[in-house]
Amino acid sequence: MNLLLHFHLLVSAALLLSPSLAHDKFDSHVLPRPLSILEYQETPGILLSNELDREVRLLCDGWRFAVEANNLGPWKTVPSECAEYVREYVNGRGYGVDLEVVGKQGLEYAKGLALGGDGKDVWVFDVDETLLSNLPYYADHGYGLEAFNGLEFDKWLEKVKAPAIESSLKLYEELLRLGIKVFLLTGRSERHRSVTEENLRNAGYRNWDKLILRNLEDHGTTATVYKSKKRTEMVEEGYRIVGNSGDQWSDLLGASMSNRSFKLPNPMYYIS
Amino acid sequence: MNLLLHFHLLVSAALLLSPSLAHDKFDSHVLPRPLSILEYQETPGILLSNELDREVRLLCDGWRFAVEANNLGPWKTVPSECAEYVREYVNGRGYGVDLEVVGKQGLEYAKGLALGGDGKDVWVFDVDETLLSNLPYYADHGYGLEAFNGLEFDKWLEKVKAPAIESSLKLYEELLRLGIKVFLLTGRSERHRSVTEENLRNAGYRNWDKLILRNLEDHGTTATVYKSKKRTEMVEEGYRIVGNSGDQWSDLLGASMSNRSFKLPNPMYYIS
Repeated sequence: MNLLLHFHLLVSAALLLSPSLAHDKFDSHVLPRPLSILEYQETPGILLSNELDREVRLLCDGWRFAVEANNLGPWKTVPSECAEYVREYVNGRGYGVDLEVVGKQGLEYAKGLALGGDGKDVWVFDVDETLLSNLPYYADHGYGLEAFNGLEFDKWLEKVKAPAIESSLKLYEELLRLGIKVFLLTGRSERHRSVTEENLRNAGYRNWDKLILRNLEDHGTTATVYKSKKRTEMVEEGYRIVGNSGDQWSDLLGASMSNRSFKLPNPMYYIS
Repeated sequence: MNLLLHFHLLVSAALLLSPSLAHDKFDSHVLPRPLSILEYQETPGILLSNELDREVRLLCDGWRFAVEANNLGPWKTVPSECAEYVREYVNGRGYGVDLEVVGKQGLEYAKGLALGGDGKDVWVFDVDETLLSNLPYYADHGYGLEAFNGLEFDKWLEKVKAPAIESSLKLYEELLRLGIKVFLLTGRSERHRSVTEENLRNAGYRNWDKLILRNLEDHGTTATVYKSKKRTEMVEEGYRIVGNSGDQWSDLLGASMSNRSFKLPNPMYYIS
């Protein structure tokens, strides 16, 4: 990015986020009170555009850190001040690089494992935002700025158009090559089994050993409870969960946790 | 930051990180292979300084995300390419904002708790990089670029000069005001009890209910095992751990976990 373009983006950000707007909105329950530059600005309105941009980025970086480190309680939508920040992150290189780092870490960990060789070593993957990307859907719905709409999302899901997250596909294929079984554990409903299988195959995934979807009795519990129960069943069947990949902490925490888990980035939504 | 200063920093970064250095070092076990710009540069050496800067930042952002989301296995030192990035982060506003967001989240969560009113609600805090900052020590030791030296660190610790992390002090005081007991659970050794107490008091901390340090029998286990054991003892004594703050995942994961935990940022070191 050259300096002129950089400056252009700073000015655009300033137009989108006037100081007064930023001031009001940052004092929300999600973000801390506005910090020095915004708070103590003696002459509101003359804030330099790049300073504002920097301030918004710092606060949204802080918010994203809180999301990814599981510090936030349940949240429903991306804070409005961070809508542009999230859009830039997922469409720019940041998201891709973060996904690539976590995929690479999974690969190196898997290659170093001492496996049982008895077909009991398994890796658990979540599906949405872990193996498959719903970014085209979220692009049409404000990248998490709009509250989740299950009916709309189901329409998207039934189009079977979600592309693979490439770094996850690479990890997935290497796990199979190493002789590790792959279990897919998703919050999608049992009634979406065939579209889910079709989408996974379209995206290049093959030879999973189990695809576990929510059936009627599992509806109404949190993902943490549902996924813990299913992992515990795996362990009771004699499987060793050697790794677990998911974009939500509810994919990874709870009972029968894996020794090592891999949290993929997701600043667009939260599932309890 | 004005554009001239911004440009100056980009040029400085380029001087510090030549393309060939970045290329070699990024192909390490910690970071993914160098990405497009560095890898497919047709004429090495003419990489624009701001592109290189952007590339380094993206990769170090990815590394830091992996650290904070607990995706990395044990690591001993900050990757050398990210030394400058970490120095800037902890000395700049990024670290402070991230600390402030997590402190604020803790505060809001605590205020919303339905407390027992029987003196059994407790909040567990780690000490180093959670209540107290050892940044002055790490500033003299490459901000995590040097491998940890226990003897050197002990000398620093015995100086009792670690300042408070202000956002943690604010949370700490509010918890006491709400009637929540504070238990401090640290990897520091029992022989450092008095210097630790003195340092905590110097930094403004008062009225903790317990300060638990490692005694001889707890040496030689991981922090996760030691801290889990101590948390389980609290639960067995009838305490309810309503919150837990720490800068390491080993402060937060394991047995007798808190319902909500607060991971403070720390890109300088890792404790198993």
